Amino acid sequence: MFEKKLTAQAPVRPAVQRRGIERRKAILDAAEALLGEQGYEAATLKAVGERAGIPVASMYHYFPDRHQVDAELLRRHLRALEELLAVSLEGPEPSTLRDAVDAVIDPMRDYFRQHPSCVELWFAGRSETVTGLVREFDVAQADRFWRLLVERGLLPADTPRLVLQLAFEVGNRLFDTAFRQSPSGDDATIDELRRMATAYLETYTA
Amino acid sequence: MFEKKLTAQAPVRPAVQRRGIERRKAILDAAEALLGEQGYEAATLKAVGERAGIPVASMYHYFPDRHQVDAELLRRHLRALEELLAVSLEGPEPSTLRDAVDAVIDPMRDYFRQHPSCVELWFAGRSETVTGLVREFDVAQADRFWRLLVERGLLPADTPRLVLQLAFEVGNRLFDTAFRQSPSGDDATIDELRRMATAYLETYTA
Repeated sequence: MFEKKLTAQAPVRPAVQRRGIERRKAILDAAEALLGEQGYEAATLKAVGERAGIPVASMYHYFPDRHQVDAELLRRHLRALEELLAVSLEGPEPSTLRDAVDAVIDPMRDYFRQHPSCVELWFAGRSETVTGLVREFDVAQADRFWRLLVERGLLPADTPRLVLQLAFEVGNRLFDTAFRQSPSGDDATIDELRRMATAYLETYTA
Repeated sequence: MFEKKLTAQAPVRPAVQRRGIERRKAILDAAEALLGEQGYEAATLKAVGERAGIPVASMYHYFPDRHQVDAELLRRHLRALEELLAVSLEGPEPSTLRDAVDAVIDPMRDYFRQHPSCVELWFAGRSETVTGLVREFDVAQADRFWRLLVERGLLPADTPRLVLQLAFEVGNRLFDTAFRQSPSGDDATIDELRRMATAYLETYTA
């Protein structure tokens, strides 16, 4: 019975679906703008709805609370960053560990600079979901980076994967420090991160 | 008038004061026990009062909210840690950077192991006050460590102080990772921290 009903309604579904997709995108765009311009506290579900021109009652239909908006927006940022890192790492072969470290740090620094909403979400870690997403991303990127370094002969194959995971943890912390220091990310701090990560990885080449 | 009254009451003050000091200590001890045994969420002002045998109404007299208890207990931990680090660093002269790094990491690891309530407060960073206290401690210790390394000729005097501050930030993050991994602090992670900090500092000796 139910299935029949659903089938009968099918013709209107693409339009409804399209509108849903557009609205979700408008909400995420509004959240991104508000987070970037006014910071975490300002980007409430109500304020985001107003900015997107969507009535509060409809907002709940798409996102039950602000944490869901934050998480979805962060996922969008993480997908973009993953792309950028892939391009950077698959590009001109890094011939030293320092080059390889830069090939991770440069696109991340640039992305954070251009996307203050990503900095707000990434480092605030205000919900378990957000913290979990960042951790998952770090582990996946650390593993990918480990494979690349081993394949290119920059690290021996018996280097523990833990080494790259901890390097990413540390990178996270120092990016946080750099962006707490200045909205464009303090370059002195980021340069120390390059130096520290490279020196640490080099201890595994001996 | 008021002053006279106060002077007239003076004889009872030492006893009252002593009771206040004893009660504050009892509250901090109860908070320490609860945080260590049951974690952050369980150590509410009410639960801490019950454990200390102090009526809730009196609790507010000593600490207006749980964050004040957390902050005061963390201050107690930080004073103890400062003592331990002083003893460790002033002790047998570290003759290499690795020895010096171990002279900081060993007492901190041992202290965190023996004081789970300190781990709860230190890494949870649930209030601005707690985060601020930890940051202040890190900066002070980083500066002290910088002076020691320079005095002993293990680092050149033109090494930026930022280097030691970032090393402490990183130490904080990896201790957090180590104690999230295991209540006794994952040794593999702590060993990587020793390695990373040493390799980083060594880049300044060349």
